[in-house]
Amino acid sequence: MAPVKKGILERLNAGEVVIGDGGFVFALEKRGYVKAGPWTPEATVTHPEAVRQLHREFLRAGSNIMQTFTFYASDDKLENWGQTLKISGAQINEAACDLAREVASEGDALVAGGVSQTPSYLSCKSETEVKAIFKKQLEVFMKKNVDFLIAEYFEHVEEAEWAVQVLKTSGKPVAASMCIGPEGDMHGVSPGECAVRLVKAGAQIVGVNCHFDPMTCVKTVKMMKEGVEKAGLKAHYMVQPLAFHTPDCNCQGFIDLPEFPFALEPRILTRWDMHTYAREAYKVGIRYIGGCCGFEPYHIRALTEELAPERGIMPPGSEKHGMWGAGLEMHTKPWVRARARRDYWEQLLPASGRPKCASMSTPEGWGVTKGHADLLQHKEATTTQEMKHVLEKQKKAKSSA
Amino acid sequence: MAPVKKGILERLNAGEVVIGDGGFVFALEKRGYVKAGPWTPEATVTHPEAVRQLHREFLRAGSNIMQTFTFYASDDKLENWGQTLKISGAQINEAACDLAREVASEGDALVAGGVSQTPSYLSCKSETEVKAIFKKQLEVFMKKNVDFLIAEYFEHVEEAEWAVQVLKTSGKPVAASMCIGPEGDMHGVSPGECAVRLVKAGAQIVGVNCHFDPMTCVKTVKMMKEGVEKAGLKAHYMVQPLAFHTPDCNCQGFIDLPEFPFALEPRILTRWDMHTYAREAYKVGIRYIGGCCGFEPYHIRALTEELAPERGIMPPGSEKHGMWGAGLEMHTKPWVRARARRDYWEQLLPASGRPKCASMSTPEGWGVTKGHADLLQHKEATTTQEMKHVLEKQKKAKSSA
Amino acid sequence: MAPVKKGILERLNAGEVVIGDGGFVFALEKRGYVKAGPWTPEATVTHPEAVRQLHREFLRAGSNIMQTFTFYASDDKLENWGQTLKISGAQINEAACDLAREVASEGDALVAGGVSQTPSYLSCKSETEVKAIFKKQLEVFMKKNVDFLIAEYFEHVEEAEWAVQVLKTSGKPVAASMCIGPEGDMHGVSPGECAVRLVKAGAQIVGVNCHFDPMTCVKTVKMMKEGVEKAGLKAHYMVQPLAFHTPDCNCQGFIDLPEFPFALEPRILTRWDMHTYAREAYKVGIRYIGGCCGFEPYHIRALTEELAPERGIMPPGSEKHGMWGAGLEMHTKPWVRARARRDYWEQLLPASGRPKCASMSTPEGWGVTKGHADLLQHKEATTTQEMKHVLEKQKKAKSSA
Amino acid sequence: MAPVKKGILERLNAGEVVIGDGGFVFALEKRGYVKAGPWTPEATVTHPEAVRQLHREFLRAGSNIMQTFTFYASDDKLENWGQTLKISGAQINEAACDLAREVASEGDALVAGGVSQTPSYLSCKSETEVKAIFKKQLEVFMKKNVDFLIAEYFEHVEEAEWAVQVLKTSGKPVAASMCIGPEGDMHGVSPGECAVRLVKAGAQIVGVNCHFDPMTCVKTVKMMKEGVEKAGLKAHYMVQPLAFHTPDCNCQGFIDLPEFPFALEPRILTRWDMHTYAREAYKVGIRYIGGCCGFEPYHIRALTEELAPERGIMPPGSEKHGMWGAGLEMHTKPWVRARARRDYWEQLLPASGRPKCASMSTPEGWGVTKGHADLLQHKEATTTQEMKHVLEKQKKAKSSA
Repeated sequence: MAPVKKGILERLNAGEVVIGDGGFVFALEKRGYVKAGPWTPEATVTHPEAVRQLHREFLRAGSNIMQTFTFYASDDKLENWGQTLKISGAQINEAACDLAREVASEGDALVAGGVSQTPSYLSCKSETEVKAIFKKQLEVFMKKNVDFLIAEYFEHVEEAEWAVQVLKTSGKPVAASMCIGPEGDMHGVSPGECAVRLVKAGAQIVGVNCHFDPMTCVKTVKMMKEGVEKAGLKAHYMVQPLAFHTPDCNCQGFIDLPEFPFALEPRILTRWDMHTYAREAYKVGIRYIGGCCGFEPYHIRALTEELAPERGIMPPGSEKHGMWGAGLEMHTKPWVRARARRDYWEQLLPASGRPKCASMSTPEGWGVTKGHADLLQHKEATTTQEMKHVLEKQKKAKSSA
Repeated sequence: MAPVKKGILERLNAGEVVIGDGGFVFALEKRGYVKAGPWTPEATVTHPEAVRQLHREFLRAGSNIMQTFTFYASDDKLENWGQTLKISGAQINEAACDLAREVASEGDALVAGGVSQTPSYLSCKSETEVKAIFKKQLEVFMKKNVDFLIAEYFEHVEEAEWAVQVLKTSGKPVAASMCIGPEGDMHGVSPGECAVRLVKAGAQIVGVNCHFDPMTCVKTVKMMKEGVEKAGLKAHYMVQPLAFHTPDCNCQGFIDLPEFPFALEPRILTRWDMHTYAREAYKVGIRYIGGCCGFEPYHIRALTEELAPERGIMPPGSEKHGMWGAGLEMHTKPWVRARARRDYWEQLLPASGRPKCASMSTPEGWGVTKGHADLLQHKEATTTQEMKHVLEKQKKAKSSA
Repeated sequence: MAPVKKGILERLNAGEVVIGDGGFVFALEKRGYVKAGPWTPEATVTHPEAVRQLHREFLRAGSNIMQTFTFYASDDKLENWGQTLKISGAQINEAACDLAREVASEGDALVAGGVSQTPSYLSCKSETEVKAIFKKQLEVFMKKNVDFLIAEYFEHVEEAEWAVQVLKTSGKPVAASMCIGPEGDMHGVSPGECAVRLVKAGAQIVGVNCHFDPMTCVKTVKMMKEGVEKAGLKAHYMVQPLAFHTPDCNCQGFIDLPEFPFALEPRILTRWDMHTYAREAYKVGIRYIGGCCGFEPYHIRALTEELAPERGIMPPGSEKHGMWGAGLEMHTKPWVRARARRDYWEQLLPASGRPKCASMSTPEGWGVTKGHADLLQHKEATTTQEMKHVLEKQKKAKSSA
Repeated sequence: MAPVKKGILERLNAGEVVIGDGGFVFALEKRGYVKAGPWTPEATVTHPEAVRQLHREFLRAGSNIMQTFTFYASDDKLENWGQTLKISGAQINEAACDLAREVASEGDALVAGGVSQTPSYLSCKSETEVKAIFKKQLEVFMKKNVDFLIAEYFEHVEEAEWAVQVLKTSGKPVAASMCIGPEGDMHGVSPGECAVRLVKAGAQIVGVNCHFDPMTCVKTVKMMKEGVEKAGLKAHYMVQPLAFHTPDCNCQGFIDLPEFPFALEPRILTRWDMHTYAREAYKVGIRYIGGCCGFEPYHIRALTEELAPERGIMPPGSEKHGMWGAGLEMHTKPWVRARARRDYWEQLLPASGRPKCASMSTPEGWGVTKGHADLLQHKEATTTQEMKHVLEKQKKAKSSA
C-alpha cells in the first residue's frame, strides 16, 4: 500500500513550496484534443490517453498537484456551446478524476478537483441556480474523493464566493483563484478586497490564475496578500499565470489582445523567464506556484529547477535537462558551447524573427483606454451578455442602496 | 486484415500531396523526454508511451508518414555523447520502428525509417566506416520492414550520397533531405547540384529539412528542382522546415542564432503562417510537405487544412478546430467574435510582448558576415572537428586535382 | 511705430492659446553651434546669424514667444565647464536678448528671458549665493526690457522657488517650469505640490519642460493643475516637452536613457505625433504649448496647425506645408497620392528600419528599478555632486525637524 | 584676393577625399522653406537667408562642395506643379548660384551646379526637348561660372546620359549620379552598365544619390566601379545617400515606403552610423562622399571626423563636438560620463521608444514583391505617367529591334 500523502494544507503549513501543473486547454488544443472557443474537456472521455500523457508530463516536470481536467465542465457550459456530444457532464468529470488520480498515484502528487466560472452567473441566474451548478460538480469530486478543491478562473468575486461556499460544504481544503489583474475584478473590487472576501467565504488558499503574465500575476497576489494581512486574516497564496508576455493587456487580460487565441506564439515565455517568475513568486511569499494557459511541461520543470535549492528536490524530468544549458557543453561549435552557462541565458534578449511585427499590441474592447471604471458607464455597449449582466448588477446595487 | 496501403512512390507518382510529420526531438524535449545537446532518441525504449502519443497526435493532425524516431540513433553518435544508457542502438532503433508501425496502422500512414548525419563523417572516417554506420541502422529497418527510407539532416552532400547508396541496397524507396539553405552545403555545393548528385546516387525524393524557416526551405527546394530539371533528371520533392522564423540566419542555419536552442519561443510560427507555407510549397511543386524542429501537431494540422481543397481530406484532428478561427463565433465579446474570419488572421502581425527585444539577431560563428566561401579560408579557426574536416577535405581535393 | 503687443498674461487671461518655441541647444547642436555636454549658448555672441535664423524659423512656424537663448548662461555654469571663451556671461545674455527682440519684432511675438538650474544649487551653495546668480541674469533682462520671465528646467522645487522669488522682484510676469515627471522632483515632491509652491512663490504660469515625452509632460502638468485647484489657487499652465518618445524613462527622464544624447534619432516625434500632443495639451486646459529638446521648426508648425481651428491663425510657414500631406496630391504614383489624407498619417505606425534594435531601453542610474524613494536611501552612491547634495539636504531636513 | 582653389578633378586625381554636402529639400522642409510634394527651390529667391545659413552649416561641417540649390528647378517642373510664383526658373537658378558662391568663398569649397530628372522625360518628350530643359539651366551655371556640374537624381540612365551630354558642352567637369539601387535603373539596366554608359557619355565622376540608405548606396557604387573597371574605363566615384535606414526598400527606394515623406523620423541615422558609412565608402574606393535627403549638418560633420586621419583635416564645426561623446566627460552622473567613449556608441543599438511600431515596413507599389522585371510586364497598371512612359519605351525598343 502506498503511504498516506501529506495533504495540501499540511504541506503549506509546514512552509513547503508546492508546484502546480500547467494549463490543459491550451496544451491539448495544440495537440488536437480541445476546441478553441468552447474550451471544454470532453477529451477525458474521448481521448483519455492524451489527457493521461499530459498529466504524466507535468508530474515528471515536478508538479505536486494533478488538477482534474474539468475546466468549463459545468452542465450549463457544456450545453451552452451546443455540444452534440453524447457524453454527460458527470461522465466528463468522473473520467477527469480517474485520470488525475491514476497519474497522481505514480508520484507524490495530490488530486485537486476544479470548478470555474459559469455561463449561469454571467446570464444573471440566481445564487441558488449558480450554486446548484457547482454542487453537481462537487458531487463527482466527493464520490471520487479528490484531495482538495479549487475554485478558479473567476472574474467576478461574488461568483467566486458562491463557489467557495459550495466547495466548503465538503469539508475538504478549498483554494480560490481569480483571473484578475492589479485593477481587480470586473466590478472594480481590488485584489486585496477580493482576497479578503474569499478568505471570509472559507478559502484557505487564495490567488490568481490565467489572463495575465507571470509578473502581473505575482504583483496581483502580492496585493491580495497585503489585503488579507491588513484585514488581520490568514491564508496561503497561489499563483498560476499565463506563459505569455502580456505587458500590453488592459484590465480584462489576454482575451482582449488581438493575438488571442491563435497568434500568441511570439509571446511564449522561455524556460529562463520561468526561473525569474518562480524566484519572484517565492520572494513575495507565494508557496503554491504553478501555471495556466501556455504552460508546457518544460515550463513547469523550470519552476521546479529554480526552487530546487529551497526545496531540495529536482524533478524526474531533469534527467533530460542540463541546468542553464549545460547540455551544450560538448557541442562541436565553440560559440554554441559558450551558451552552456547561466548568465548567457539570463542576459539574452531573444529576437522574434518577425521584423514586420511590433512588440506591443493595442488591446480591443471596452476597457482599452479607459479602465474598468468606464466599463460600468458604457451604456451603449449592451450587445453582450456580459454587459447586460454588469448593468443588471448596477441596478441591483442602486436599488438596494 | 488491413488493406494494403499505397506506397510513397505510388502516391507521389499519382500526383497526391503527402503530409509529413513534425520534429520529434524538439517536441519531446519540451515534454521532458529528450535532452537538448545529445538530442538522442532513447525515449523509444525508456518512455514508449510518450513517443507513441506524439505519433498519434501527428497522425490525428493528418500526417501520412510516421518517421521512426531514430534521429541521431547511430552507434557512433550514441557513444560519442557518453551515454551511460544500458540500451543498445539496435534496441532504440527497433523500438522506434515498432512504435511508428503501431500508430501507422491506426490510420492511412506509412512508416519511414530514417538515418541522419554521423559524427564519423565529421571526424573524417573513411567511406567504408561511415557506410557501416548506416548499414547497421538499415538492418533494423529491413528486419522491421519499414515502408520506405529517408536520409535526412545532412550538411555535406558527400555524406548524404553515401547514405543514399547504402539505403538503395534495400530495394525500398529512398528520400534524401539535406539541412541546407540557398547557399548550399558546407562546401558551397549549390542546392541544385546537391539535388542532382542525390538523384544520381539513387534518391527518388529529394529536398531539405530543419535549419531554416519554411520560406527559406521552399526557396531552397525550388533551387533543387530547377537543378534536377536542368540536368534532365526526374525526382519528387520534399520539404520539412523549422517552425521558427529565421530571416536573420547565416548559411549554417538556426544553430548559429544566439537563441538556439533554448530561447526560440518568439520565433515560433502560428498556424496561419503554416497555411502560407503549405500554399507556397504546393505552388512550387513540392508534394511531400511536412515539418521539423518546432512543429507541434497543430502546425501539421494547419498544413492539412490548407491543402484540403486539393486533397479532399480533412484530418481527424480538425473535429477540434474551427477553420480560420470559426470556434470563436459564439464568444460573448463582439470583438472576439470578430476574429472568427480568415482575413483577420491572415493580416494580423502578432506582437511579441517583449519591448526590450529586437526582431532580428546577429548570428554567431564563422560564416556570419562572410558567407561559407570564407569558411574554407578561415585558417586560424581549427579548434573544432568540423573545421578540421573541412580542411582535410580541401587537402584531398587539392592532392587529387 | 509698431503697435504695442498684448502681454503674456493678457493673452492667457483672455483665454488665448500661446504657442511656445522649440529647444535651442539640441537644434543648434545639430547645426554645429552648441557643444553637447556643456550645452552653453555662447553662439549668441560667436554665431549670431545661426541663432537669429533659428528664432526666425520658429516665428515662421507660429511661435508667439521668443525665449532668449540663455540656457545654462549663468556665470557659475559657464565657469564650471572650463570655458576658455573670452566672452562674459553678461555678453552672452545681452546678445541673446537682442537676437530674440530683433526677430520678435518681425511678428507678433513676445520676448521671454530665461533662467535655468545652476551648479551652485547642486553643490549646496547657500540661498543667497544661488539667488545672486539669478539676479545677475535678471539685470540683463531688465536692461534689455524683455516682456516676461521664465524659470525653467529645475529638478528641485526649492531652487525653482528661489528663482521665482528673484524674478518676481522685476515686476514682470513670471513663468516657472520644472523638468519633472509624474513622480515629482528629485526629493519626491509631487507635481501638484511643486506647482502650489511655485504659485505661492509668485509664478503666474506653471508647468514642465524637457526630460519627458509630450504625453508624460501633459500628464504631469495635469497633476500640477489638479494640485493648484485643490489648493484653491489660480494659475496658467505651460508645457514644453521633448520631441522624443520616452515611454521607458525612469523618474529622471531621458538623461538616463542609454541613447542620450547622441542616439535619440529613432525616438524623434513625427509632425503627426505633434498634432496628438497639441490636442491633448489643449484638452487638459494647458494654454501655453511649446517644445524643448528635439523640437525642430516643423514640430512647432504642427502644433500651430492642429490648434488653428481654435485660434483662427495659420502660421506663415504653412505656405510651404499641405495639411495632412496634401502636398502629395499630384504625385505620379497612385499609392503616394493615397497618402494625401489625414487618416493615413494618423493611423500609420512608422517603422525604424532597424531590425536589430528593440523598441524600449533599460534606463541607467540610481532610480532605475526602484523609483526616487530609493534614491534618498542610496547611501553608498556618494560619488557625485548630486548625490552629495541630496544627502546634505536630508541632513538639514532631519536636523531642522 | 583669394588664392585659386584646386578644382574637383585636381583634388580627386590627387587622391584626395572630397566631402559633399547634405540634402537641401528635406532640411529646408523641416525649417519651413520647402513644400513637400513639389520640393522646388524657390526659397533661393524668397528666403535667401535660410538657404545661405544651411550652406554655411554644411561648410562648417566640412563640406568641400556647395551644390547650388537648384533641385527640380527646371522650367517644366516649376510649371508642372502649378506654381503661382511670380518667379522665373532663371531667377531661382541664378540666386542659387550666388548663394552657393557666397558661402563657398568663406572656405575651401567649390560650387557645383546641379540638374536633376525632368517631368519632360517621364512624359515621353523627345531627346531634343529634354535636352533643351537642361541647356536652359546650364546657361545660368555658365553665366555664374560654377566650378563643375552634377547631373543627379536620375532613375532612367537614358535621361542621365542626355543630361551629361548637355553638361559636357560646357567644358567643365561633369559628375553623374543616379538614384538607383543594386537592382539598377527603372528599365533593369544594372548599376555597372549605367556607370559605363555615363562614363562614355562624358562623366568624369559617377555614382548614386538619394533613394537608399548609405550601405545600399555604397554597394551600388561598388557595382558601378566594378562595371567601369571591367569595361577598361576610368572614373571617379561619388555617393550621396539618404540619412535614413531603408533595409525594407524595394527597387524604387524610399518613395515607396509607407513612411515617405512625413514619418521617416525613426529611420534617421545617428552620427555614429555615419562613421560606419564614411569608412565603408572609403574602403570601397569612393572619394566623393556626401549626403542627400535626411542629412543635417552634424551628419556631414561625422563624415569629416571619421576620415580626419586620412585627410588630416577636422572641420570648423568640430570645435563644438567632442569626438565619440567626449563632451560628456564632465557630466555629474557617472553612468553618463561612461558614455564618453567610442565603443559605447559603436555598440549601442538605439531603441525607438515606439513599442507599437515594427522595425520594417512593406513597401507599396508595383515592384513590391516582384522586382523591376515585373514592372515592365505589368500591363494593367497604366494609370500613371511613369507607367505610360515605361510602356512607350518598350514599344520603341521593340519597333527598333
